[in-house]
Amino acid sequence: MKEIISKIAKTTIPSKIIQKSKKEIADKVYKLVEKEIQKYSEVVELEFGGSYAKDTWLSKNADIDIFIKFKKNISEEKLENISKKIGFESLKKYSPYVRYSQHPYVEAKIKDTKINIVPCYDVKIGEWKSAADRSPFHTKFMKKSLTRKMRNEVRILKTFLKSNKIYGAEIAKQGFSGYISEVLILQYGSFENLIKSIIKIKEKQIIGKTSKSFDTAIVVIDPIDGNRNLAAAISNENIGKFILSCRAFKNKPSLEFFKNQKSKISNKFWNNLLIVKFEFKIRSPDIIWGQIKRATSTLSTQLELGGFTVVRSKAHTDEQIDAYLIFFLESTIISEIYQKKGPEFFRNDGSHSFISKNLKDSELVWIGNDGKIISLEKRKHVNAEKFMKEFLKKNLNVGIPKGLHSDFKRGYKVFLGNKTLSKSIKEEISEVISVDGTLLHFN
Amino acid sequence: MKEIISKIAKTTIPSKIIQKSKKEIADKVYKLVEKEIQKYSEVVELEFGGSYAKDTWLSKNADIDIFIKFKKNISEEKLENISKKIGFESLKKYSPYVRYSQHPYVEAKIKDTKINIVPCYDVKIGEWKSAADRSPFHTKFMKKSLTRKMRNEVRILKTFLKSNKIYGAEIAKQGFSGYISEVLILQYGSFENLIKSIIKIKEKQIIGKTSKSFDTAIVVIDPIDGNRNLAAAISNENIGKFILSCRAFKNKPSLEFFKNQKSKISNKFWNNLLIVKFEFKIRSPDIIWGQIKRATSTLSTQLELGGFTVVRSKAHTDEQIDAYLIFFLESTIISEIYQKKGPEFFRNDGSHSFISKNLKDSELVWIGNDGKIISLEKRKHVNAEKFMKEFLKKNLNVGIPKGLHSDFKRGYKVFLGNKTLSKSIKEEISEVISVDGTLLHFN
Repeated sequence: MKEIISKIAKTTIPSKIIQKSKKEIADKVYKLVEKEIQKYSEVVELEFGGSYAKDTWLSKNADIDIFIKFKKNISEEKLENISKKIGFESLKKYSPYVRYSQHPYVEAKIKDTKINIVPCYDVKIGEWKSAADRSPFHTKFMKKSLTRKMRNEVRILKTFLKSNKIYGAEIAKQGFSGYISEVLILQYGSFENLIKSIIKIKEKQIIGKTSKSFDTAIVVIDPIDGNRNLAAAISNENIGKFILSCRAFKNKPSLEFFKNQKSKISNKFWNNLLIVKFEFKIRSPDIIWGQIKRATSTLSTQLELGGFTVVRSKAHTDEQIDAYLIFFLESTIISEIYQKKGPEFFRNDGSHSFISKNLKDSELVWIGNDGKIISLEKRKHVNAEKFMKEFLKKNLNVGIPKGLHSDFKRGYKVFLGNKTLSKSIKEEISEVISVDGTLLHFN
Repeated sequence: MKEIISKIAKTTIPSKIIQKSKKEIADKVYKLVEKEIQKYSEVVELEFGGSYAKDTWLSKNADIDIFIKFKKNISEEKLENISKKIGFESLKKYSPYVRYSQHPYVEAKIKDTKINIVPCYDVKIGEWKSAADRSPFHTKFMKKSLTRKMRNEVRILKTFLKSNKIYGAEIAKQGFSGYISEVLILQYGSFENLIKSIIKIKEKQIIGKTSKSFDTAIVVIDPIDGNRNLAAAISNENIGKFILSCRAFKNKPSLEFFKNQKSKISNKFWNNLLIVKFEFKIRSPDIIWGQIKRATSTLSTQLELGGFTVVRSKAHTDEQIDAYLIFFLESTIISEIYQKKGPEFFRNDGSHSFISKNLKDSELVWIGNDGKIISLEKRKHVNAEKFMKEFLKKNLNVGIPKGLHSDFKRGYKVFLGNKTLSKSIKEEISEVISVDGTLLHFN
């Protein structure tokens, strides 16, 4: 394991040339923004944030984050307006655009480097007004705490997480953030020690110090906020993939763990996919992802109530126009009948009304071996496509979060996965009928 | 209710003519048997038993039972041989034949009246050597305890049970015996009081006195043996039918409850029936019924393990040659795939081997939302007929009681219910796709 890690370690530090070029961009942007903030007395100061500030960035895709700290008595509206003005004005040469987090922020690209101009409040530790307010404290804490050696261990961990497709805090991904990577390395000292600890981790184990209790698979406490569980934003599946990858790496260390892991698609299951597609009016990625994930979950429940077995499900969106709710069904056609268990015959009123009602409404009624009265019901739908179309037509309010109602009312399509789909969408959808690369380590 | 019951009461006492004719037959047979027992010093005495002796018999189908009491030190073999000789010799004019209970006994028919010559031991109360030994005590006890009025109440109850098809203690039926009918009337005094009590009965309620505890839906203690639960021989379904019939009668008393209740068949479900038919070498009805009921139960379990949903099942035999195991399936064709839940990813060894194994053997492996590793398995059989044929070919020892192995090895057929079947067999099989007449009272 040591050997593999030291090989990787040599590849993760950005080269001098890349470092120089990144610094040039960063300094240039900083100056541009610095000039703009002079116009606003609401702004306290400016500082670099994220992996660039903490020197834990990877050569590929390293963003430069600049935080604009506002006085804490400024309204949220003003904070948003002023920071947008500053962002657009300072980056005007680079076609800036708005992105959405809790508050909107301005993004632009300079030579493949994304620049994020993010507003936050200048508060005391713990007195958070917006989610971004913690960031300057994270930066300060990590700059102080991480040794030079540790910074590269963070890079190794990030590479490991990226290769196994579990890096990224956005809701679309629900993976590991850059900050949690730093916290883990700080906690265990090195990537190797982290691996050795994670392979032995127990359910609900707490990494860090807290007086609160949390209900996630594992708990990782934010060192600057003992009430915050950084692992809460990570899906169970991704925590599982991380733990399994660590175990697989410990068992059979190889460079493979630091290369992109390809999934293995089972193409024969395209026919088992039920897909709901719709267009939506653009909104913040966090919001649309949250909405389509909830829609997928409630519609899965409805499919199960309708008698279908949902094997896996997934939501996907291009974050611009199209959204997809994807359901992998055991079978898209199910039996016409099913049993409904009623009360035991000892229960006087219950059994009487159950029998009377079902003599009228159901196909058969009888007394089961366990003493329960059972009725045989006929399903309204045996075909998943028809079931879903009918359900959305009649029960939009039950199955779909309120925020998507107007989008759905403008139209949606329900179809099986064997229909023609664009290559990129097919790739996303195929995830539910694939064995994830992480698990293929066990091959 | 009183009115209906008193109307019925007038019809249940056998007419003078029938009584006279029954007595003539009984006395004649008694004399014939009495003459024969003189030859055997092993025999102590002779007595009438059953409903004839207790004067609780119904005009239709009333048997005459004569018990031959043997000295208690006689071997079972001798008891069987001598009683058979006595039976055949005394009834030789009436084409006697052997029937099987715990011990074989001789039966014959005189003018539509069945005569049973049954051996038992002459023991003290409680010192039972064979199941029939209790009978003389039952007879004596009931003759002493039942008033003239009560005897007709027993007849009313028996008529009620027969009409609702839950009368008959044989294992094929698992219904209410004549004796339990007498015990119930003795307990509650009249049919009306019985109804009033049964409609309020609670689960596991004990009727009678005992120091033992029993695990049946209701418990009815034998007045001459506090350790014996007479309800143990009644199926849950039949106890349920009885309680429901009592409630329905109380709610809406009518003469209908004393006429044969016809079931309502749902003919559309013939295609959902999977039938296993085989021929067997003749044996005692109790034995073949027990065997085919057990076979039906274990094969139901196997079908469920194979992914099929067994809605109802039933065994049937003509007690001579043919036996049928009948399975009403939700669907005779099921989905090709199913999920298998593995260990949670926190379990180190378990998850490793589960993933490795299933990467080879199964269609897909992934981490479920609940943290369990799941594999997608392909079924070997999606067709119930093929599944059953294959199962019986390979796993006869698992699915079929030992006592039927040689019968099955001589051959069996597996087919769906839409095949041509004789009318009488169709009628029996149709029970699983019918609403029982008892429940139709609630219409």
